[in-house]
Amino acid sequence: MAESGKGRRGYRAGLGGEMLAEFLGTFVLILLGCASVAVAVAGLPGSGRQADSFGAANWLIIAFGWGFAVVFGVYTAGGVSGAHINPAVSLALAVRRVFPWRKVVPYWIAQLVGAFVAAALVYAVYSWAIDAFNAKAGTPRNESLDTFAIFATFPAEYFGGSWWGPLLDQIVGTAVLLLLICALTDKRNSAPAANMAPYLIGMVVGVIGLTFGPNAGYAINPARDFGPRLWTFLTGWGDISLPGTYEWFSNYFWIPIIGPLIGGVIGALVYDLLISQVLTARGEEEPEAGRVP
Amino acid sequence: MAESGKGRRGYRAGLGGEMLAEFLGTFVLILLGCASVAVAVAGLPGSGRQADSFGAANWLIIAFGWGFAVVFGVYTAGGVSGAHINPAVSLALAVRRVFPWRKVVPYWIAQLVGAFVAAALVYAVYSWAIDAFNAKAGTPRNESLDTFAIFATFPAEYFGGSWWGPLLDQIVGTAVLLLLICALTDKRNSAPAANMAPYLIGMVVGVIGLTFGPNAGYAINPARDFGPRLWTFLTGWGDISLPGTYEWFSNYFWIPIIGPLIGGVIGALVYDLLISQVLTARGEEEPEAGRVP
Amino acid sequence: MAESGKGRRGYRAGLGGEMLAEFLGTFVLILLGCASVAVAVAGLPGSGRQADSFGAANWLIIAFGWGFAVVFGVYTAGGVSGAHINPAVSLALAVRRVFPWRKVVPYWIAQLVGAFVAAALVYAVYSWAIDAFNAKAGTPRNESLDTFAIFATFPAEYFGGSWWGPLLDQIVGTAVLLLLICALTDKRNSAPAANMAPYLIGMVVGVIGLTFGPNAGYAINPARDFGPRLWTFLTGWGDISLPGTYEWFSNYFWIPIIGPLIGGVIGALVYDLLISQVLTARGEEEPEAGRVP
Amino acid sequence: MAESGKGRRGYRAGLGGEMLAEFLGTFVLILLGCASVAVAVAGLPGSGRQADSFGAANWLIIAFGWGFAVVFGVYTAGGVSGAHINPAVSLALAVRRVFPWRKVVPYWIAQLVGAFVAAALVYAVYSWAIDAFNAKAGTPRNESLDTFAIFATFPAEYFGGSWWGPLLDQIVGTAVLLLLICALTDKRNSAPAANMAPYLIGMVVGVIGLTFGPNAGYAINPARDFGPRLWTFLTGWGDISLPGTYEWFSNYFWIPIIGPLIGGVIGALVYDLLISQVLTARGEEEPEAGRVP
Repeated sequence: MAESGKGRRGYRAGLGGEMLAEFLGTFVLILLGCASVAVAVAGLPGSGRQADSFGAANWLIIAFGWGFAVVFGVYTAGGVSGAHINPAVSLALAVRRVFPWRKVVPYWIAQLVGAFVAAALVYAVYSWAIDAFNAKAGTPRNESLDTFAIFATFPAEYFGGSWWGPLLDQIVGTAVLLLLICALTDKRNSAPAANMAPYLIGMVVGVIGLTFGPNAGYAINPARDFGPRLWTFLTGWGDISLPGTYEWFSNYFWIPIIGPLIGGVIGALVYDLLISQVLTARGEEEPEAGRVP
Repeated sequence: MAESGKGRRGYRAGLGGEMLAEFLGTFVLILLGCASVAVAVAGLPGSGRQADSFGAANWLIIAFGWGFAVVFGVYTAGGVSGAHINPAVSLALAVRRVFPWRKVVPYWIAQLVGAFVAAALVYAVYSWAIDAFNAKAGTPRNESLDTFAIFATFPAEYFGGSWWGPLLDQIVGTAVLLLLICALTDKRNSAPAANMAPYLIGMVVGVIGLTFGPNAGYAINPARDFGPRLWTFLTGWGDISLPGTYEWFSNYFWIPIIGPLIGGVIGALVYDLLISQVLTARGEEEPEAGRVP
Repeated sequence: MAESGKGRRGYRAGLGGEMLAEFLGTFVLILLGCASVAVAVAGLPGSGRQADSFGAANWLIIAFGWGFAVVFGVYTAGGVSGAHINPAVSLALAVRRVFPWRKVVPYWIAQLVGAFVAAALVYAVYSWAIDAFNAKAGTPRNESLDTFAIFATFPAEYFGGSWWGPLLDQIVGTAVLLLLICALTDKRNSAPAANMAPYLIGMVVGVIGLTFGPNAGYAINPARDFGPRLWTFLTGWGDISLPGTYEWFSNYFWIPIIGPLIGGVIGALVYDLLISQVLTARGEEEPEAGRVP
Repeated sequence: MAESGKGRRGYRAGLGGEMLAEFLGTFVLILLGCASVAVAVAGLPGSGRQADSFGAANWLIIAFGWGFAVVFGVYTAGGVSGAHINPAVSLALAVRRVFPWRKVVPYWIAQLVGAFVAAALVYAVYSWAIDAFNAKAGTPRNESLDTFAIFATFPAEYFGGSWWGPLLDQIVGTAVLLLLICALTDKRNSAPAANMAPYLIGMVVGVIGLTFGPNAGYAINPARDFGPRLWTFLTGWGDISLPGTYEWFSNYFWIPIIGPLIGGVIGALVYDLLISQVLTARGEEEPEAGRVP
């Protein structure tokens, strides 16, 4: 840990430090978020089958769990990296030209690694609960969509195999997320001051959970879904993880990657078109490049 | 999208830009709000019949869903248009003389269009869930008050056909809303600073949902009700939508339009009479014309 | 409404204006608070009997309903009267010598009248729901503790007629309330800035509901209980209202008056003894007389 | 109460005053926190057996109960002692060198006494409810894990007697807590201003309840667990309290002491390594020694 060499200091002072922050911010996000689903599915004494695990009161646990997971992921990394903690945010800000393109892939890597490591820790803490759940249900791990749901997402049965349904859901959900991140960090608009924006950005994800969550698990973040998905693939959930195939769907894994990337760009463009350009037309200065929040 | 001509810039710098913001703010409000009811009615696995869909835990989803929908609608449009996102707000502020009368109808149009377009997008994302719900219940769409409830409002059965009951409910609910908007934006009183007022204004709607919601669906906003109602009328909900006729009520549609307009004015006048005039009598300056928040 | 005469302006600029603000703030408190219980007891389709009405999900509606009722009551009156909206607050601040004794009784009157008028409006809006509830339960109004609970409080059956149990509960609950009001408004301590104290003061009442509420309905405010109790006495709840006599208790009415008055003073004194005097000993200035928040 | 002698003033101005604040802050924490479990277990009419008491809606009561308990404990003591109200916080800050080692043991004592006294008051208020619960269940007090759960923690049955499972849970939970306390109080990062940090620190504990709570009751604070545990030992819960032995576990009591102390240090070190040193490498000043928040 010695801060001895100038090289290391230099590494941390630049992109390397930002990657550490993105890693840790995304780690916090996934650790708390996935663990909230673990509570609903396997932690509480009354949990058990899917309809119960994702009933309304459990859904509040999951929605506020993920909401505050974002709050604290953003507070963790905010002052260092801008706390994107989501590849769709990094891409959309690059498209908006407020984040340099050359940093996009490094941020994506840090986010994905953070999500993967956090999934491993959730697994370590909840392995007893998961095994007890599967033993009680008499389901082998590679057939247990319930315990897979702790880590990654899948579409509701009512989509009946349509890939357009959950893809649209992911596009709309992530568009809302980016539109509101833009609003909540635009000081020319009515953005919260006193560093309260991370709280409200987290509540955006909370309310997306309350409004679009059951459709397809509201990944709205490629790292949030693919990192833990990879972990479950390596620890026995089989085809359910990758390529994401089960009773009513095949090859799901790409949807929570592509959908959020498309949706995020759309949301940022809508904000720019309908709000940001209006503020510019009024003569207010352009937003400064850079940080979220 | 080219910002080439001066005319267009001028358009955006004036009322046109405010209308874009009201459109987008109301769009965010209705997109999140209606989708929260979709989650309670048709999204969660345990949902099904009305008594379940509107049980207490689902009601928390709906109340916080609409509450945060207001929060983020206001943050979206706040810096441009004042974020009325509700015709009753525009009217009441005009009566208070802090909003110009000539802008009232343009704001109303932008709010209504925003609500209508948002309802269309909620419908697009939730059409699979709605169809599955109706198929399972064996109810044709034009008889399904449950799925209609995703979009617009209707009075509780216990009013027994009385139009005065739900009208009073709408008047009281909207009066509370405007009274508190006035308090939360009056800097001579104890209004929150640091741009946190939108958060608290949204929580006003959240608590109205927890306190008056089940009576008549707490529209408390003519655009919120009539925009999505129009969409459902065009997509097959028939008489339930317009004129709003079903087993225990006929011609409901006008109540969530007229009630909020009356109630909002009453609420603003009560604030002016009991609080604002007291502050003026103490020698504090009159509130400046204009923005909410 | 004419602000014509100097006399009237003078009246409003002084204690009269403060009384108007206390009236309106307490009105907002009781209107929202009592209506949240009406939702749990008689508004939601799944409600019905006591064990259901006060189940955990309904309890969240009631706790956050009353919590935000306090938030918005305080924001309504804060800048004018300090928003005590609770006789126990006025008394405790007078004992602390940060509120003049001569204003205590006028404040109490304004608070009680506000609570009474708000109860009347809750009754007006919910009379259909109350009548339907009692008809369905086959219980006459003067035997319906369930519908009485919308308005005022009663002790849990497990106290078995002991008056010391609910009295202790009221003392402890109100002591916590005043202790925390003192902390949240003491700028020498870590009180929230940006006028966010009313939000947190409301959440104090929310958490008291989550922690002591079921014992005796967490009145912790003599006006909150006695105003609506008086209304129910005048509209047919009989002995249940006054003197507060039912199957397992007799003459309850005085406990939510005396308990809060005692508890509030104790809470303020504990704060002064353990925190305020420490800050003074450190050489920080005494708190200024006056406002809460 | 006399502030007569200089000696006493001196005592309060120094470590003695800080100990009073830690005592009172921890007292508020435990009074509200334990009472929220009392509501879920024995207060609400629908409560009864474990699966119900710790169902999802009750779990929300417990999570927000403890969350706001922390919020208000921190606001109570923040300006005097830094409001550690948790021995694991004091230790971790000493290891970080932002809190003097000589104060660690005095803080621990004050925290433990505050927790013990608060447990006694919760017991006093809830003794009727506890006795009624045990009478109804037909269980003697020293066999009632349900009523013990009001005061202190125990591991989920699914750990099957493994001490590593709940120990890991306590380490992870407290590491998250300290990591986020460091983030939320580091002004070089994106810490909330306007004294809103205590609100968000409390919500950290709220979300830990939603994400790791059911594993082992999320003590994440040695005083929070051991103080009330001692009280229950003295009032009849026997081996369940100390050494913490019941059907599926023996000698549990040390885990919620040692786990949090280890975890807290780990969390603070992770923050320093991945975030704080990056900020230092960028040339931002070291954090000042001392207060949380």
